[in-house]
Amino acid sequence: MAIVALAGGIGASKLLLGLSRAMDPRELTVIVNTGDDIVLHGLSISPDLDIVTYTLAGLVNPDTGWGFPDETFRTLDQLAVYGRPGWFHLGDRDLATHIHRTALLRAGSRLSEVAESIRQSLGVASTILPMSDQPVPTIIETELGRLHFQEYLVERRAEPVVRAISFDGIEHARPAPGVLESIERASSIILCPSNPLISVGPILAVPGVREALRKRRRNVLAVCPIVGGKSLKGPSDRMLAQLGLEVSACGVARMYQDICATLVIDPVDSAQSAMIESLGMKALVYPTVMRTLDDKERLAREILRFSANQATGVSA
Amino acid sequence: MAIVALAGGIGASKLLLGLSRAMDPRELTVIVNTGDDIVLHGLSISPDLDIVTYTLAGLVNPDTGWGFPDETFRTLDQLAVYGRPGWFHLGDRDLATHIHRTALLRAGSRLSEVAESIRQSLGVASTILPMSDQPVPTIIETELGRLHFQEYLVERRAEPVVRAISFDGIEHARPAPGVLESIERASSIILCPSNPLISVGPILAVPGVREALRKRRRNVLAVCPIVGGKSLKGPSDRMLAQLGLEVSACGVARMYQDICATLVIDPVDSAQSAMIESLGMKALVYPTVMRTLDDKERLAREILRFSANQATGVSA
Repeated sequence: MAIVALAGGIGASKLLLGLSRAMDPRELTVIVNTGDDIVLHGLSISPDLDIVTYTLAGLVNPDTGWGFPDETFRTLDQLAVYGRPGWFHLGDRDLATHIHRTALLRAGSRLSEVAESIRQSLGVASTILPMSDQPVPTIIETELGRLHFQEYLVERRAEPVVRAISFDGIEHARPAPGVLESIERASSIILCPSNPLISVGPILAVPGVREALRKRRRNVLAVCPIVGGKSLKGPSDRMLAQLGLEVSACGVARMYQDICATLVIDPVDSAQSAMIESLGMKALVYPTVMRTLDDKERLAREILRFSANQATGVSA
Repeated sequence: MAIVALAGGIGASKLLLGLSRAMDPRELTVIVNTGDDIVLHGLSISPDLDIVTYTLAGLVNPDTGWGFPDETFRTLDQLAVYGRPGWFHLGDRDLATHIHRTALLRAGSRLSEVAESIRQSLGVASTILPMSDQPVPTIIETELGRLHFQEYLVERRAEPVVRAISFDGIEHARPAPGVLESIERASSIILCPSNPLISVGPILAVPGVREALRKRRRNVLAVCPIVGGKSLKGPSDRMLAQLGLEVSACGVARMYQDICATLVIDPVDSAQSAMIESLGMKALVYPTVMRTLDDKERLAREILRFSANQATGVSA
């Protein structure tokens, strides 16, 4: 059963790890946000691709959810001697990924080819696709002016008030090879519990992706990243609020209403089920807070069971 | 008293360290070979520039003569996971220099501007100039085919038999800003005890440099890198022999005859003095084997004393 997952970084990778254990990981295709990508020190950095790849390889730092464990920062310390900014923490092992990616891109490879090469080198069985081979940096318009998403999130700790979000160059971006095809062919498509604005949002904004999902709406399921009115991870809640959007499961349902038939919500939000169903979506109530590996695998199994039943027409 | 030194890597840096201690280091300009430069992993690496800069900054690894001390190789180890070759040992701190240089070059800086920036960051008082801002890779024609100099020296450990040496693109290279001017204005010009074929040779091959030195011949002094028929450092001796050149102080004298009035030779080679002088050069006999910091400083002081006397017309 081919499963496609749309993913941002840390929040998504928890569910992806569960999925990769609850199913044949070779049947899983992950379409990853690249709006977070940034060039720093001349190196092409793809934070969400790396988080997903390292996680599925079993190599991610379990304490942070990104990077490798037991990292050292000797290169970054020396870069500071040359006056280079150190706010984006690049470990020595992690830097190898960025050096390798940059070298391949400079030699003419596409980002999707690079992602495939890194996946193979790290022994990941699932397919990992960037949303697009074209750079589409997420720009946050804030009270302090335009900031690259990483400048907003990491350098400024998501403190500036957000006024608007845009994806620079999105009108010229094309889905990476395999993105539309995998959505068309999947038994189920899962929107991971990632920030709907700046993790899933950029993927949906790539021309053709939202339309492809709309056609598969019945088989699209989202895991709500807002639980009890708060983000599971990161600044989704404050970003939604600052943009005047509703910070609730129901608010997320409205954002995905046209492309998604099923929203998985946490028991703390079960009172919103009726309102979600009034939007023409099914509300599935499962625990969505994934603290342990068991939590991740259990949620993944519930989603896969529901999806399999739905695919064969059996009522869940 | 402005001194210019033409330098390769490790051999030269010993004398340069002595010079920088025996004189006002701000009066020293080093013109450095860049024929050894190589792009590896997409990074622009300038081994001789870095050896000279790290040495004059007091930061070089004293055990190897290159790189930083107490280096770790975590990035290189991870690069190997991605299938990248590890024969060129790039430490984690050292990589910062290459990342920084590559980023500046990509942003449009010239190599000479990058060298100046790195020198300042590391607190070096002397001026450090690459021989040229244009890449001029040294190509070694061997029994195994054409090899980049680093492939010949480091990857193949200088084992293949050398048939010819060329500097790729040398006809289009121009001396970096300051190179000709510093030679014209210097009180003395010192050819460091570096490999005459592949360290000093590329500098002399940059159009205009040999001519500029010829005009200053009386004030050019070379320290012979061949002592007792052997290289002080590296494969000079076997390269000279494989190319049919004489492996001796006298052989070096012949290579520098047109540009250099004085050759400093070691006491073990004093029997060659007469033959060197028959070439129209003065042979100065000083101990040239520099093991300790004292050795380096003593040789530097002797050279500076001789040069000062010569500049003022006093017989040494």
